[in-house]
Amino acid sequence: MATIGFIGLGNMGGPMAINLVKGGHSVKAFDLSDEAIQRVVSEGGSAAASAKEAVMDADFVVSMLPAGKHVQGLFVTGDDPLFEYVKDGALIIDSSTIDAATARQVADAAQARGISFIDAPVSGGVGGAVAGTLAFMVGASDAEFAKAKPVLDCMGKNIFHAGAHGAGQVAKACNNMLLAILMTGTSEALNMGMKNGLDPAVLSEIMKQSSGNNWALQVYNPVPGVMDGVPSSNDYQGGFQVDLMFKDLGLAMEMSQQSASPVPMGSQARALFNLHKVNGNGGLDFSSVLKLYQDQ
Amino acid sequence: MATIGFIGLGNMGGPMAINLVKGGHSVKAFDLSDEAIQRVVSEGGSAAASAKEAVMDADFVVSMLPAGKHVQGLFVTGDDPLFEYVKDGALIIDSSTIDAATARQVADAAQARGISFIDAPVSGGVGGAVAGTLAFMVGASDAEFAKAKPVLDCMGKNIFHAGAHGAGQVAKACNNMLLAILMTGTSEALNMGMKNGLDPAVLSEIMKQSSGNNWALQVYNPVPGVMDGVPSSNDYQGGFQVDLMFKDLGLAMEMSQQSASPVPMGSQARALFNLHKVNGNGGLDFSSVLKLYQDQ
Amino acid sequence: MATIGFIGLGNMGGPMAINLVKGGHSVKAFDLSDEAIQRVVSEGGSAAASAKEAVMDADFVVSMLPAGKHVQGLFVTGDDPLFEYVKDGALIIDSSTIDAATARQVADAAQARGISFIDAPVSGGVGGAVAGTLAFMVGASDAEFAKAKPVLDCMGKNIFHAGAHGAGQVAKACNNMLLAILMTGTSEALNMGMKNGLDPAVLSEIMKQSSGNNWALQVYNPVPGVMDGVPSSNDYQGGFQVDLMFKDLGLAMEMSQQSASPVPMGSQARALFNLHKVNGNGGLDFSSVLKLYQDQ
Amino acid sequence: MATIGFIGLGNMGGPMAINLVKGGHSVKAFDLSDEAIQRVVSEGGSAAASAKEAVMDADFVVSMLPAGKHVQGLFVTGDDPLFEYVKDGALIIDSSTIDAATARQVADAAQARGISFIDAPVSGGVGGAVAGTLAFMVGASDAEFAKAKPVLDCMGKNIFHAGAHGAGQVAKACNNMLLAILMTGTSEALNMGMKNGLDPAVLSEIMKQSSGNNWALQVYNPVPGVMDGVPSSNDYQGGFQVDLMFKDLGLAMEMSQQSASPVPMGSQARALFNLHKVNGNGGLDFSSVLKLYQDQ
Repeated sequence: MATIGFIGLGNMGGPMAINLVKGGHSVKAFDLSDEAIQRVVSEGGSAAASAKEAVMDADFVVSMLPAGKHVQGLFVTGDDPLFEYVKDGALIIDSSTIDAATARQVADAAQARGISFIDAPVSGGVGGAVAGTLAFMVGASDAEFAKAKPVLDCMGKNIFHAGAHGAGQVAKACNNMLLAILMTGTSEALNMGMKNGLDPAVLSEIMKQSSGNNWALQVYNPVPGVMDGVPSSNDYQGGFQVDLMFKDLGLAMEMSQQSASPVPMGSQARALFNLHKVNGNGGLDFSSVLKLYQDQ
Repeated sequence: MATIGFIGLGNMGGPMAINLVKGGHSVKAFDLSDEAIQRVVSEGGSAAASAKEAVMDADFVVSMLPAGKHVQGLFVTGDDPLFEYVKDGALIIDSSTIDAATARQVADAAQARGISFIDAPVSGGVGGAVAGTLAFMVGASDAEFAKAKPVLDCMGKNIFHAGAHGAGQVAKACNNMLLAILMTGTSEALNMGMKNGLDPAVLSEIMKQSSGNNWALQVYNPVPGVMDGVPSSNDYQGGFQVDLMFKDLGLAMEMSQQSASPVPMGSQARALFNLHKVNGNGGLDFSSVLKLYQDQ
Repeated sequence: MATIGFIGLGNMGGPMAINLVKGGHSVKAFDLSDEAIQRVVSEGGSAAASAKEAVMDADFVVSMLPAGKHVQGLFVTGDDPLFEYVKDGALIIDSSTIDAATARQVADAAQARGISFIDAPVSGGVGGAVAGTLAFMVGASDAEFAKAKPVLDCMGKNIFHAGAHGAGQVAKACNNMLLAILMTGTSEALNMGMKNGLDPAVLSEIMKQSSGNNWALQVYNPVPGVMDGVPSSNDYQGGFQVDLMFKDLGLAMEMSQQSASPVPMGSQARALFNLHKVNGNGGLDFSSVLKLYQDQ
Repeated sequence: MATIGFIGLGNMGGPMAINLVKGGHSVKAFDLSDEAIQRVVSEGGSAAASAKEAVMDADFVVSMLPAGKHVQGLFVTGDDPLFEYVKDGALIIDSSTIDAATARQVADAAQARGISFIDAPVSGGVGGAVAGTLAFMVGASDAEFAKAKPVLDCMGKNIFHAGAHGAGQVAKACNNMLLAILMTGTSEALNMGMKNGLDPAVLSEIMKQSSGNNWALQVYNPVPGVMDGVPSSNDYQGGFQVDLMFKDLGLAMEMSQQSASPVPMGSQARALFNLHKVNGNGGLDFSSVLKLYQDQ
């Protein structure tokens, strides 16, 4: 079993760290919130007084931070960059959702320093983090992936090797952009059907068994009452917030811009979530975008 | 077994009529093309000299025509409208893909005349028509649906009762609009991934097992070489042509306009297929829209 | 001075007919509303008991109707089509905003009958109709245009000869689609500037003097308080309603579909006005689309 | 007359520096290209051996750099930041087109250092730079604006005070986003008119005199042959390149994302220029986007 430093113990990071503890690892946990640290300690982890202390003796480091600038600052360019303290040969698994360019830059800096930094953003939400069923999309060399896999297995179910450094972030951005497209598209198709007299449950079933079939119809129907146990049937509470989807779409647009990859549908989805957000719905689950289409 | 008049024996209608013959029905076939009629006759159908002759003694009539104006003209408003010749109590199954408003008008006219007219557009393409595995989306009363079902079973596999008159056309328009959204969205996500270094097969697999999962990734991958036996791996030949998708998106826009249902994603998909079409790709399979995104 | 039959005396048609009276013409006015007829009579026109009576002795007929089906029905395909009663050599000026295809069909039917039918849709709103300053976009032969011009001069200021039959409707559709693009684009540029701290009056002035210059910035600023005497400074009352812009954008989409002309920006504008409309703003002036962008 | 350090002597910066020389100022010019420096020297400027030397004794500094990271690096965060060498009380005019957030950050750093940094991006292209007729959109305090104005007057014609620090960049981003919307919108309206038989010159004239009036119709018609002396009549050579418009739209999207300002039309325009760019047209004038719409 390994010694693992964990930095960033929020809604996602906290349960992930606990699952590492449950997996038998020695976890040194750090967060700016003491309360967040204590939740991990109460499950058997140990508290680190600083990010530096969390990583100093670790074989692995897992980080879960809000944006690329935090990742780059923490490890490389900040006042007291962690890359100066990490053990030779350590493997850093960054599960933050950040831009691929930054992920590649930090990976390059790691290589120069004699350590490994791989990008491994997740999907599956808070529920998946708690249940240990997250999907990881990993950008790493084959050797790094093989080394990280047992650690990731403690926290997730589907561990995808997307490609070289940065590829995990690329895959995440592509998938979430497509998800935004599926959800808006499904919402507007169902709404048009309903406005023309169809029962949304019937139309959902027809499209699910036809060429309109997609993830939203399968497990995340946006129309209240069609499906049990999904956010739409719970006033769009819980789930994946509009604000987070908007952030992810911003990353996708940045990737589009830097690589000159045309994304007319993704751009449209971002615009729609933006309109929905300025209507005051940023805190609702993203399937609430259906409301944007409905008569007010 | 029933006497069935069949009007419109093109790429879709021809095989459908033959499947009715194979189902044991007595089929009187009519088309403007003698050759098309002969293909049905050679399988055991009988030739009708006119549309009028095809329907006169029929218990059921199946029609497969290009657009709403043809349906309306043939049955109601033309020079020699068939509604004047159809037997009392006959059931007309219109499998044309037309606008829902016209479908409802013709159904109303039928009711006034003491007969039944239901909308039952199909999906599944020429392959499905030949194999008898089409999906039918039916707009009809419960009694009409029950009566039509055995006939439809000869030609298709999934027979959906979408709702009252017109509902079949509504469901078809919604589904195909969503399909266009899925295909463009999947194409641009895969293209952005590829431009950022990912293997399209790997990215397809990741998204298929994640929240980006949809019909295109499952059975109709737009990237040549990722999947066998699909149009993209055959120079985008066969399949469902761009021109037909563009026509269907036009029907969806008309429905959006008449019901004031917002369809920003569907509108975007229509615009993209239009750009793809003016590049000279109208005759290719619709998954070729991937080419619109790629560096030329 | 000519004898002119005028059919359709609504908000636009009424004042137009009165301006013909003021121009010295003998105007026989018909509308389904007696009240509307009386308003023209009180200015010196004469009442017609039916559309037929209005056109029988007329040298010119002016029509102002809601949609293509009304125009076609009234003149050609209805129960008692006016083309059977119009004098040989009469010139019919249709100022309705309808689809170009119908305009061309009716013009062809007129030619076969030995009369002239030209399309001459207007812009300029109710204000322009009252003031006699409308713009007319005319689809006609040179001879027809020359003959119609003196009549049109009584009702408008800018009389454009757009081209052959139908060209007036094409020009109107193109112009109004572009107008919708200008208004949405200007609204979102101003809104983004305001959200980033700029004074909308200052930003409007900068863009008006730069390459962002357009009609909305010049005479129809969508931000309340920037400009006097425009709908935005009057709670978006009066002006050109969202519902009418939505109708015109529907005509533009139909034209796009029939001619396979890509209109991604126009499609986007239609989608935005549709979202704005389902928010309950159909009766406001179209510059109110700014509200769609604003934090609620 | 003032001593002015000028950094960045490219297609835009070079002529701007020369206009300062012509205005009687003592200009110390620096660029990574010696050749670029010599062009200014040959007009009466003096060569600086480094950026540091250019700014050390300057009352004003003008910078013209590619992106925000260059500006921030040069003045604040680089290895040898210029803010350490600039005279107390100096005024730095940054005419680069960069993101507003960076402009504000550098302005804050300047204030902390006791100097002034204002954003003053330009529009008007190389022609305007040579002729001294650029438009400047300035983000500055009133005092800074007053102080900078005489210097800017040497290089431009319209000097706009957009607001506080960053406001110049905001105004530029809003204006250029709107410009992209006008150009794509005008192109598609003209293309649809042409596909429906209209003469583009006639339609341009009609829309210019109607509510479709905008900068593109006034001075930059995208249809070859309609207007003399514009890029469209010169094979889309010269003018403002697609690649630069794409860059500016990227800045607008970044601003939209950071301020959550919905820009569906601007997003659409960016997507269209991206599609046009991947067709190999990045080096053409941006009015060539018309080609995207045309039958190939």
